[in-house]
Amino acid sequence: MKPLQVDWRVVLVRPRNPLNIGAAARALANFGLRDMWVVAPFEPTWQEARSAAVGAEQVVESARAVPTLLDAIGDATLVLGTTTGQRRNLDRDLLPLPELAAWLGRRKVSGRAALLFGSEKTGLSNEHLSLCHALVRIPTTPDCVSMNLGQAVAVCAYELARARVVAARPPRVTVHRSGPADLEALERLLERAAHVLDVSGYLKPKSRAAMLIKLRRLLLDLELSSHDARVLGGVLAQVEWKLGQIVNGEL
Amino acid sequence: MKPLQVDWRVVLVRPRNPLNIGAAARALANFGLRDMWVVAPFEPTWQEARSAAVGAEQVVESARAVPTLLDAIGDATLVLGTTTGQRRNLDRDLLPLPELAAWLGRRKVSGRAALLFGSEKTGLSNEHLSLCHALVRIPTTPDCVSMNLGQAVAVCAYELARARVVAARPPRVTVHRSGPADLEALERLLERAAHVLDVSGYLKPKSRAAMLIKLRRLLLDLELSSHDARVLGGVLAQVEWKLGQIVNGEL
Repeated sequence: MKPLQVDWRVVLVRPRNPLNIGAAARALANFGLRDMWVVAPFEPTWQEARSAAVGAEQVVESARAVPTLLDAIGDATLVLGTTTGQRRNLDRDLLPLPELAAWLGRRKVSGRAALLFGSEKTGLSNEHLSLCHALVRIPTTPDCVSMNLGQAVAVCAYELARARVVAARPPRVTVHRSGPADLEALERLLERAAHVLDVSGYLKPKSRAAMLIKLRRLLLDLELSSHDARVLGGVLAQVEWKLGQIVNGEL
Repeated sequence: MKPLQVDWRVVLVRPRNPLNIGAAARALANFGLRDMWVVAPFEPTWQEARSAAVGAEQVVESARAVPTLLDAIGDATLVLGTTTGQRRNLDRDLLPLPELAAWLGRRKVSGRAALLFGSEKTGLSNEHLSLCHALVRIPTTPDCVSMNLGQAVAVCAYELARARVVAARPPRVTVHRSGPADLEALERLLERAAHVLDVSGYLKPKSRAAMLIKLRRLLLDLELSSHDARVLGGVLAQVEWKLGQIVNGEL
């Protein structure tokens, strides 16, 4: 069995407690993961984080801190959010962690994948969730759903390591396509589409934000290849140009 | 497969840090385990342990503290020790954690099983290990073998829950989405897109037919759900309408 070639990045979004950053780093190092990004931490005190990262100081030192989630996932071709699944209307595939490996295998995932963990108290916001291709739920019991951040990272890192060994599947015959589009390409597409729809009057001020989240969701679901993204980008550019003529009064 | 009827007890032997006792309790509660015993803790400050056991205070409160390991495992029919496997001459089966469930199944284990975790710095002593039927190793990487105690408990608790769940039910493959769009819906979408692109001047007479074939291919590759197709149809209809205003000279 050939293991999947996935290059994992773990992203902590708005962590409150530096000790948890350190604990997360240690858990990653325990399972051979090294790429940790931190988005807008509440207390960026790396010294404390380092002290909690026994044996994994290197992971903390090489961690990247960035202001926004998009900065951390722009080059990812797959983005997975973790959630307790308690919030309603998530409107997203909710994948039990033990089934993640099989899911990755079916989708023949390769390249850079980002796994997101939200803030300790609140988890990932709806905005963050809208950037995810799918959501992963650690199968905790209803009596005690919420996990400690460092422990949640440990469990996920363990599962990724376990699955690589145990669950990797023989690759199926692949369709010849260009690789998947990365998040940055999709965001550019979304911006372009938003512009076209603004000019077309499709987006109303009241529902604009919600509609864009819906559109982003749709874009992610399409699983565009980078070629698809380029073609659609070209189509949108043309429509944009034509609509621009109206705005500029050229027609 | 029928789930194993194992009644798990987790035993922390000589834990140094009360926060780790609390963290362990929380992880156990997360995965439906409740029976925690603590052997001769260095600092039996339960208040601190309770503070770290968010949502699992009950597990800390009902935890039993006893002076010796034997007091904690006397009624167990199976005793498993956790180890990094670094020490020599362990003279014991070393079971990778991911294979624990299969091993338990082969031995048709039932009744009370105890899973032991040693002190943070030193792990289980040879004396403690000598009381174990087998040793379990969490498959950490050689670069960073040693885990945080609370995280090690979390990973083991997850694995016990996972094995139970995965063994008990057929794996789900489901993804809650509307069904795939049918060909008719796709053709309607393609017609609409073609119209938008004709008006936009994207389709040139010479290459029009080839381009439409390319677009149809793209549409099929997207594997749209019927919901996706409706949303895209709505988007296109709006753009079509706006462009129509140009053609009819309304703008």
